Amino acid sequence: MQTLKVIKIGGNIIDDEQALHHFLEGFSKIKGPKILVHGGGKLATKLANQMGVEVKMTNGRRITDADTLDIITMVYAGKINKNIVAKLQANQCNAIGFSGADGNAIVSEKRPVKDIDYGFVGDVLKVNTNTLEVLLNNQVTPVFCAITHDENGQLFNTNADTIASELAIGFAKIFKTELYYCFEKNGVLQNVNDDDSVIENINSENYKTLINEGIIADGMLPKLNNCFHAIKHNVHKVCIGKPEMLFSLNTKHTTIQA
Amino acid sequence: MQTLKVIKIGGNIIDDEQALHHFLEGFSKIKGPKILVHGGGKLATKLANQMGVEVKMTNGRRITDADTLDIITMVYAGKINKNIVAKLQANQCNAIGFSGADGNAIVSEKRPVKDIDYGFVGDVLKVNTNTLEVLLNNQVTPVFCAITHDENGQLFNTNADTIASELAIGFAKIFKTELYYCFEKNGVLQNVNDDDSVIENINSENYKTLINEGIIADGMLPKLNNCFHAIKHNVHKVCIGKPEMLFSLNTKHTTIQA
Repeated sequence: MQTLKVIKIGGNIIDDEQALHHFLEGFSKIKGPKILVHGGGKLATKLANQMGVEVKMTNGRRITDADTLDIITMVYAGKINKNIVAKLQANQCNAIGFSGADGNAIVSEKRPVKDIDYGFVGDVLKVNTNTLEVLLNNQVTPVFCAITHDENGQLFNTNADTIASELAIGFAKIFKTELYYCFEKNGVLQNVNDDDSVIENINSENYKTLINEGIIADGMLPKLNNCFHAIKHNVHKVCIGKPEMLFSLNTKHTTIQA
Repeated sequence: MQTLKVIKIGGNIIDDEQALHHFLEGFSKIKGPKILVHGGGKLATKLANQMGVEVKMTNGRRITDADTLDIITMVYAGKINKNIVAKLQANQCNAIGFSGADGNAIVSEKRPVKDIDYGFVGDVLKVNTNTLEVLLNNQVTPVFCAITHDENGQLFNTNADTIASELAIGFAKIFKTELYYCFEKNGVLQNVNDDDSVIENINSENYKTLINEGIIADGMLPKLNNCFHAIKHNVHKVCIGKPEMLFSLNTKHTTIQA
């Protein structure tokens, strides 16, 4: 079984032109089938401010109304995605930009309203691998932004970490899939202020302890839930760390184990 | 040789939600390989106004500076393209959105500066059919916005009519290609105020007469130059008219002949 790498990059790379340039150079050299998933960074908030569109928050979480969905579609699928694709082409990596609507790749449904109506936020229902597999087999690299659709013409804002894990899971029947979450730290840290205090292995057992001790909290919780979700659904390898973990074997990072 | 239809729609359809919905329903039912090319409509100007970005004109033509290119990339490749793709999926047409950077499909160079520097405007150099052909053979419909790239990481604003004709020409070695320009009139009109006065056939001979008589002028000139360029480069059929010409055989339209 061939290996497929699904690699997610976040705002810290997207928002830093030099870092993005450097990452895409390295990414282009990775051999074999690969998929890139990118977050949005601060550009969407900047555009919303420029356009005078109010950023609506409830309990600290952003609500995606119709105007916000338009902004996200413009920034994520337009500006960021197309610039990444153009830069990959410049590095001889034949990329095609994707939202979940393209090739009907990722189908989602509107997040059910319980206490809060998040608006146009989609929870993933299904990954369709057919068209993507044809492209991967033709040495084409899909580049995903964090937008999905409902097969009825509606686009949805969807968490980029979730898109990465669902793609890795969806392809696990065809490839030996590896999932890499790149962010600004060397991995999950024992001490948030010490970038060398990487917890190199997390399994379902020490995970509980780390949560109870408050070492894993806040934004790391949903990220690690995505990791365990992937590992439990036949993804072969899940890693969290700086992008350098992809390019240099002796870069510290966290590996998630079953 | 199989027939490939390349169909271009302009602002009059993009800007009218009902018209776009109706068009995409009909387009989805067209059998065989097909490519959709869409213009931008008024949304880019609207966004520029909202963002306070000045629209720079020289001799009546828009100059694409870096801010304008960003806006065009957001609106054309983001909002318009992804909404069209999602609506085609809702009509069981498996579409993938493309700029010229995606799949390295359309390579251009910055328009040379003579009297005017148009900024980030690209003239098409080459169409790469390889990746697109794989998709067409897998019943996938590429949907192109009017953006190209230079293979060095730079995106360019490019005329949508030109993109359509260059795609039709590029595929003429593989398919029997047909090129359809859909706009708000029934075709080239003898009398601009009479939508029934369609000139049903234009060839290189009566074309000159029509120009000399001032019947073909202004915006119709570059459109017809694209048509003749296509016909001279092995495109099998070139038509101009309302979208209905695609769906109903007895709809009046203009056909361009060698």
